Amino acid sequence: MEFSSKLLQNAVYEMSQLPGIGKRTALRLVLHLLKQPEERTELLAHALLKLKSEVNFCKNCHNISDTEVCEICANPKRDETMVCVVEDIRDVMAIENTSQYNGLYHVLGGKISPMEGVGPQDLNIAPLIKKVKDGTIKELILALSSTMEGDTTNFYIYKQLEGTEVTTSTIARGISVGDELEYADEVTLGRSIINRVPFESSIKAN
Amino acid sequence: MEFSSKLLQNAVYEMSQLPGIGKRTALRLVLHLLKQPEERTELLAHALLKLKSEVNFCKNCHNISDTEVCEICANPKRDETMVCVVEDIRDVMAIENTSQYNGLYHVLGGKISPMEGVGPQDLNIAPLIKKVKDGTIKELILALSSTMEGDTTNFYIYKQLEGTEVTTSTIARGISVGDELEYADEVTLGRSIINRVPFESSIKAN
Ligand SMILES: [Zn+2]
Ligand SMILES: [Zn+2]
Repeated sequence: MEFSSKLLQNAVYEMSQLPGIGKRTALRLVLHLLKQPEERTELLAHALLKLKSEVNFCKNCHNISDTEVCEICANPKRDETMVCVVEDIRDVMAIENTSQYNGLYHVLGGKISPMEGVGPQDLNIAPLIKKVKDGTIKELILALSSTMEGDTTNFYIYKQLEGTEVTTSTIARGISVGDELEYADEVTLGRSIINRVPFESSIKAN
Repeated sequence: MEFSSKLLQNAVYEMSQLPGIGKRTALRLVLHLLKQPEERTELLAHALLKLKSEVNFCKNCHNISDTEVCEICANPKRDETMVCVVEDIRDVMAIENTSQYNGLYHVLGGKISPMEGVGPQDLNIAPLIKKVKDGTIKELILALSSTMEGDTTNFYIYKQLEGTEVTTSTIARGISVGDELEYADEVTLGRSIINRVPFESSIKAN
């Protein structure tokens, strides 16, 4: 693609670095911004910069939060003996949306994936194990997607917890195998949390 | 969608103001940026801000250009007696890509669209008419997409040129009716420029 302006070329290049945004789409988005009043670009740019520079992760569950401890963790009505382990903050949003869960969360920040070079040390697994060993948590609900990486991560966490008294469960596979949590409908996802099964029995089922 | 952070919510909102980017996609893009090194966000934000604040349109053809007059208009090897009228700078890029055209361009910045409230005064039509009346231009190639808005715009320009000696042509419809120029393959688009037809005969054909 030949650009008539380096400024334009540069903006399109940076936009096309976003996942799923090709050069052509990036050009369309950039030209759209050019046609809008200048504030639109400023609002977008500043919102991204502000988020990136000021973002804070809850020191308890690693959810994105504007406060040191997120609203969920800080809510005394939530059951702190129950922790739902998820990959991503989008999964927290999806589960919160079902209104079926009253415990806390723990956001891993991804799944173990040897293919993509993601090991246990790249995820928030150690703080989870420490939290369990420190007490209070009675049940851990493993709510990772049922892909190979999700299963590997579940199993890794399960092994790390050997010798502790915590009960581990996985969410019921009301949602079809291989599906991402965030795309499941609320009813199915809510039910799969209520019908969670002991993790041991989910291993045997495989 | 319930967000755990106002900063996040704000960034997702601004991102979702871009055309074709829904809330879910916006969240995915923003979370992607959060996982990348801080420079990625800065490079993107600054490239957009810099383009928006420093963008310059060629004073001759209204193409985006880093110089007062764009490279095409400033090139003495280009035939300045021939001007190809396009909607958008993407069309300039598409036609340049065919290497079949050696004249200059005139970028209108859109099409007349009563539905979207775009009238002739919102486009770079007056400077085009003035340029033609000032002399030098012998042929105007109307290369707008063959939609109702494109046809309306073509016809409006054609009427404004009554009494001038300029030859008007439209690009040959080797590309299928209703198709956007920028998605046409190079060979077809190149051929449709070579086989351009007098505008008068294209009106009669309708
Ligand atoms: Zn928290
Ligand atoms: Zn120019």
